[in-house]
Amino acid sequence: MLRPHTAAPPLPHARWWRAGVVQAVSPPGVVDLEPGYLEPGLLPVDEVRPLYAEALAEFGPAALGYGANAGAEPLRALLAARHGCTADEVMVTAGTSQALALLCTALGRPGRSVVVERTSYDLGRMIMTDHGLRLREVDADGEGVRPRALDLALAQDDDVAFVYLTPTFHNPTGTVAGEARRRELLAVAARHGVPVVEDDAYAELGLDRVALPPSLAALAGRRGVIRLGSFSKTLGPGLRLGWLEAEPALIETLTGRGQLVSGGALNHLTSMAVTMLLGDGRYDRRLSWLREGLRLRRDTLVAALRAGLGESVSVDCPAGGFFLWLDFGPRRDEAALLAAAGRAGVAVAPGSRYGSAAGTHLRLAYSLNSPDRLAEAAARLSAAWRTEETLR
Amino acid sequence: MLRPHTAAPPLPHARWWRAGVVQAVSPPGVVDLEPGYLEPGLLPVDEVRPLYAEALAEFGPAALGYGANAGAEPLRALLAARHGCTADEVMVTAGTSQALALLCTALGRPGRSVVVERTSYDLGRMIMTDHGLRLREVDADGEGVRPRALDLALAQDDDVAFVYLTPTFHNPTGTVAGEARRRELLAVAARHGVPVVEDDAYAELGLDRVALPPSLAALAGRRGVIRLGSFSKTLGPGLRLGWLEAEPALIETLTGRGQLVSGGALNHLTSMAVTMLLGDGRYDRRLSWLREGLRLRRDTLVAALRAGLGESVSVDCPAGGFFLWLDFGPRRDEAALLAAAGRAGVAVAPGSRYGSAAGTHLRLAYSLNSPDRLAEAAARLSAAWRTEETLR
Repeated sequence: MLRPHTAAPPLPHARWWRAGVVQAVSPPGVVDLEPGYLEPGLLPVDEVRPLYAEALAEFGPAALGYGANAGAEPLRALLAARHGCTADEVMVTAGTSQALALLCTALGRPGRSVVVERTSYDLGRMIMTDHGLRLREVDADGEGVRPRALDLALAQDDDVAFVYLTPTFHNPTGTVAGEARRRELLAVAARHGVPVVEDDAYAELGLDRVALPPSLAALAGRRGVIRLGSFSKTLGPGLRLGWLEAEPALIETLTGRGQLVSGGALNHLTSMAVTMLLGDGRYDRRLSWLREGLRLRRDTLVAALRAGLGESVSVDCPAGGFFLWLDFGPRRDEAALLAAAGRAGVAVAPGSRYGSAAGTHLRLAYSLNSPDRLAEAAARLSAAWRTEETLR
Repeated sequence: MLRPHTAAPPLPHARWWRAGVVQAVSPPGVVDLEPGYLEPGLLPVDEVRPLYAEALAEFGPAALGYGANAGAEPLRALLAARHGCTADEVMVTAGTSQALALLCTALGRPGRSVVVERTSYDLGRMIMTDHGLRLREVDADGEGVRPRALDLALAQDDDVAFVYLTPTFHNPTGTVAGEARRRELLAVAARHGVPVVEDDAYAELGLDRVALPPSLAALAGRRGVIRLGSFSKTLGPGLRLGWLEAEPALIETLTGRGQLVSGGALNHLTSMAVTMLLGDGRYDRRLSWLREGLRLRRDTLVAALRAGLGESVSVDCPAGGFFLWLDFGPRRDEAALLAAAGRAGVAVAPGSRYGSAAGTHLRLAYSLNSPDRLAEAAARLSAAWRTEETLR
């Protein structure tokens, strides 16, 4: 028998974890596997608590003034050392969403195109279409975008602002492009002279002890590649902090925009606070702890779903990130699967939200719930989806 | 004899108040009256130090998650109470520059126009032109934009995205529009059905004990008006925090943009920290103290310039904000005045930077230096500008 969700102990500060304060909160009784959020207990309240006082003790008023447009040097230097580039190839941002919006206005113009993987991050797509950019979807396989498809798309459209790729722990599919694939994609984009935006928000959340291929930015020496990094998935999105890696000339273009010249660094005081965390090993200890927590959650959900669903659904285990991408094959009906999940008190994300790929898929986040709740969700889903009514 | 600038005691943390960490730093020996910055000693290091720990103790993980898109309710409610509106008419922003950029993409489109005062905030203008908007300048008088000029401009151009006004402590001119003028401008904009963006960054920095007219937003009940507020001038720009007041329907449009849906509130944790300051009187005590400091600086610079320059230059005393707007009349040469100031070791801003108004003007900020340094600057400038070489 399923345990009621109230068996979980109440969260500390639970009265503030509610709509109107945080972004989306599932109704009582629902196990929410929908958004790409960290569970409240995985957010680093204790680690962040002292940081701002530390930053003000160290940097004084310089942490409160207009920050250098590209971000303050101490953080740029630490990020450059972590990611194998130079500080002038790093710009501090207010997170990936903000960086993408800035790129849409600086590199794009309404009516121009962006090439995206047929299945790709829905809200990234929304930011681009909000700016009047047209999405040109290209086919993918188990390593993401196919080079031949990219080549064709770029040959057919001579007004592409940039190519948007997520080669590492792709959201939602979880795929990772190998080094050979990365080099092929870079070569195609370079041949057409089109910049690549590499959304690498999940890059530091590899959950298996296997080496990842270098980022597109690293392989290209940042030439023609803009890599978007984020602290939203590793620390917390409330910080609104990220960075990008790019050619110094592009960073000069971005930091010369009126928004930057006027307001300075995009999130200066918070960048100084995170500098304290990055500078002395605390960030790496946090990452290790978080990866362990995510690995346990991923393994719990994968095992419970495989046990419950048997061979009726393909449950791939992603090597990192927040999501499972379930493949129900062509004969199951997405709306019926969603409705059945909903009746069982589990919220999941429909695959069609992420683009126009064929087949029936659902995205399940393992990041927002405890292992116990994930096991409960898997049991509920398995029972709900075993019925024949979810066939087309 | 002028005292060398090294007579000032070294600032605490002076090693971090340098280019590459903060945005712009004047060369040694130069008294910098150019940017709209607060002096490091006026930045609230002590007040901000405990805030983030307080916010995390109060709100817990809810301060680190994705914030509600319009900003968290506690801050929206406090701002609504301060500004006489309802919480659903308030949206938290990452400062005026960011808010303006968001409005340019949400309300504008490359090729559309924005009506601006002939003399107006240079970097606001730059944000708008960066987004492909065309500036249509209209004439002003001692209360800002003339209603007749606005009417004419809106009649001549049927593709105006919005009118950009600064009716309170205008930057750079320091003018304040009276209530009658405000009502006239609102009536004109409403008749043409064009929204007004009211940049009110300096609104809380009135330095004289006279009541200000209500904001355009208040007079219009926020109908057709978007008021931009900022903590950059009252606390510190490093926070990157502000808010806007607007009709709930417009706020829904803005919070429905991909950037917000994806990233949530524009600067969530910092907004929770500032909530602690606003909630218990500390912000108001800070404002009183800051106004006193700015009043002393303004009065020092005005008196010293009037004494030094005599009747050759008109030195109006602004009722608030950061700036003096000197009027040299038509016979003096801007470039020569700037060069003479530079040779005397004082940096000032050329009036032509702010638009195409006739006459010769310079903008001097009294916010970035101590009263002693301002008196020194006034003496240097008076000596430099007394010579005939600055005539056209």
